Amino acid sequence: MKGKVYLVGAGPGDPELLTLKAFRLLRSAEAVLHDDLVAPEILKLIPSSAQVHNVGKRCGKKKILQGEINCLMVALAASGLRVVRLKGGDPLIFGRAGEEIEELRRNNIPFEIVPGVTSAMGAAAAAQIPLTDRRASSALVFITAHHSSETKASEKDGSDWSKFVGSGATLVIYMPGQNYSEIARRLQSTGLAANTPCAIVSRATTKSQRTHRTTVRDLHRAPQLVAPTLLVVGEVARLADPVATAEEFVMPDWSPENGSSIPATLFHPFFVQSSRLPADEEPTA
Amino acid sequence: MKGKVYLVGAGPGDPELLTLKAFRLLRSAEAVLHDDLVAPEILKLIPSSAQVHNVGKRCGKKKILQGEINCLMVALAASGLRVVRLKGGDPLIFGRAGEEIEELRRNNIPFEIVPGVTSAMGAAAAAQIPLTDRRASSALVFITAHHSSETKASEKDGSDWSKFVGSGATLVIYMPGQNYSEIARRLQSTGLAANTPCAIVSRATTKSQRTHRTTVRDLHRAPQLVAPTLLVVGEVARLADPVATAEEFVMPDWSPENGSSIPATLFHPFFVQSSRLPADEEPTA
Repeated sequence: MKGKVYLVGAGPGDPELLTLKAFRLLRSAEAVLHDDLVAPEILKLIPSSAQVHNVGKRCGKKKILQGEINCLMVALAASGLRVVRLKGGDPLIFGRAGEEIEELRRNNIPFEIVPGVTSAMGAAAAAQIPLTDRRASSALVFITAHHSSETKASEKDGSDWSKFVGSGATLVIYMPGQNYSEIARRLQSTGLAANTPCAIVSRATTKSQRTHRTTVRDLHRAPQLVAPTLLVVGEVARLADPVATAEEFVMPDWSPENGSSIPATLFHPFFVQSSRLPADEEPTA
Repeated sequence: MKGKVYLVGAGPGDPELLTLKAFRLLRSAEAVLHDDLVAPEILKLIPSSAQVHNVGKRCGKKKILQGEINCLMVALAASGLRVVRLKGGDPLIFGRAGEEIEELRRNNIPFEIVPGVTSAMGAAAAAQIPLTDRRASSALVFITAHHSSETKASEKDGSDWSKFVGSGATLVIYMPGQNYSEIARRLQSTGLAANTPCAIVSRATTKSQRTHRTTVRDLHRAPQLVAPTLLVVGEVARLADPVATAEEFVMPDWSPENGSSIPATLFHPFFVQSSRLPADEEPTA
C-alpha cells in the first residue's frame, strides 16, 4: 500500500499558531521531515514511534541537497508511510515546495498541501502593522533578499525590486540578512524615498520577538537583530506598535502518552474512522 | 476592569485551518463580532453564554458601517468583556483592521492580533500552485479588484496594477468579482501577455471548492464560479492541479457541553492559570 505525503506549514514561530489540521497530521505521522525553524514544542507532538529527519539547510551548516530531501520523501511514502514534510510558515512561500511537488507527481505519490500562517502575517500581527491599510497601501508584495548558492546571478542585482517600489505597495522582504546597508542601497537605487518608514521584526510571535522601527535612510544604523528577521517597508510601517513584544508563551511538555488529546470529532472523518486519533498506532507498513 | 479585544483570523474556509490560538480564544470569548465568511462550524465553538454579532458587510446586504463596528467593539471591551473580532483569512489582509486598531488605540483598549491562514495560501495549497516557485516567479503580489463605495475614484482605474505586471511576479487578485472580461482587460492593458496562465479558485479549502485553469486571453470565457473566489495570475498557475478538489470535511456538532476539549496544557499559561479552559465560565464583568 502506498503512503502519502503532507506538505504542512508549521506557522511563524509561536507553536499555538499551528493549525488544527497540522496538529492532527503531526499526531498521526509515521515519518516527519522538518526544517530548522520549526519550534521544539511542535516537534514534541510527533509520536515517538515516528521517524524524524531534520532536513534543514539553514545557514549552510548542513549540506543536504534538495535532491536528497526529495529522494528521502518519496522513498518513505513509497514504503507505505504517512509522511509529514513540515516547513516553517506556509509551505508554498519562498521554499522549494514547487520542486517537491514535481517530484511527488513524477513518482505518483499521493500528496496534500496544508497551508500555514506565513511569517509576514505573523510579523505584522505581532508588530501591529496593518499591511494593506487602504489609506496607505494598495497592494502587498513579498520578495526575498536571500541568495542561495543555487540562485541565478541575474537575480542578485536590484533590478527585480524596481518594479514594486513607488507603487504604493507595502513590501515585505523575507530573509533580509544582516547587511541592512546593502538592502537600503537596493531600495533607494530604485527610487524609494529615503524617509519611507520600515520595521525590522525579529523572531516574530516568539517570546524573544523584537521590533525596530526606522526609515530607509537610517536602516544602516539599525541594530543587528537575531534571525529569522523580516523587513516591512512602506507607509503602513509607521503604524507599528513601537513597544510590540510577544506575550510569554511556553508550550508545556505534552506527549501522546499523557492520554489527553484534541477531541477526534473536531477532525476529518477519515481519521476518526481509521482510529488514527486519539490513539498513536504503530506504523503498519 | 477593562476587557480586551482579539483581532483573530479564522482562516480560508476549512474549519480545520483555524489555529490552536484562535480555537482557544473563541472557546473563552465573552463577545464575538464576526464577518460573513466565517464557517458555521467555527461559530459553533463560541460558548453559548457569549454575545454573538454578525457584522458582515458582504455584498451590501447589510448596511452596518465600519464606524458602527468600531463603536460596538470598543463598547463591549470597555464594559469588561473578552471580545473576539473574527475575520475571514488573516485579519490584516484587505480588511479594515487598520481602522479598528486605530480606534482601539484611541480608546486605550488593550488588544492583540492573532494571524490566520490568508485566502491566497488556502487557494494555492488547495489548487497545488507553488506561488513563489523560484524557477517561474521572483515575487508574490496581493492586490484586490474589489471596489467598495468607500474606495477612492483614483483607485478604480488600472494604473495601480501596471507596476506589477511583467515583473515576473505571481499576482493574486482578491475579490476579483464576476466580471472576468474587465479583469482581463485591465491585465492586458498593462502589457501582460495574453497567454499568461491563470487560475480561478472558488471556495478554496471547502468541500465545494472548484478550480478553473485558463489564460488571460480566455479568462472572459471562464465559468462564473461561486464567491468567494480568488484569481492567481502568472507562470506558476500552469503548475496547478487541474483536478484539485478538497477532501470532504465536516466538523461535527461539537459544543462545550460535551466536556471534551483540547488539553489546557497546550495553551498560553495565562489561560490555564485563570481556568478559562477547559471550563466555560460565565462572564464576570
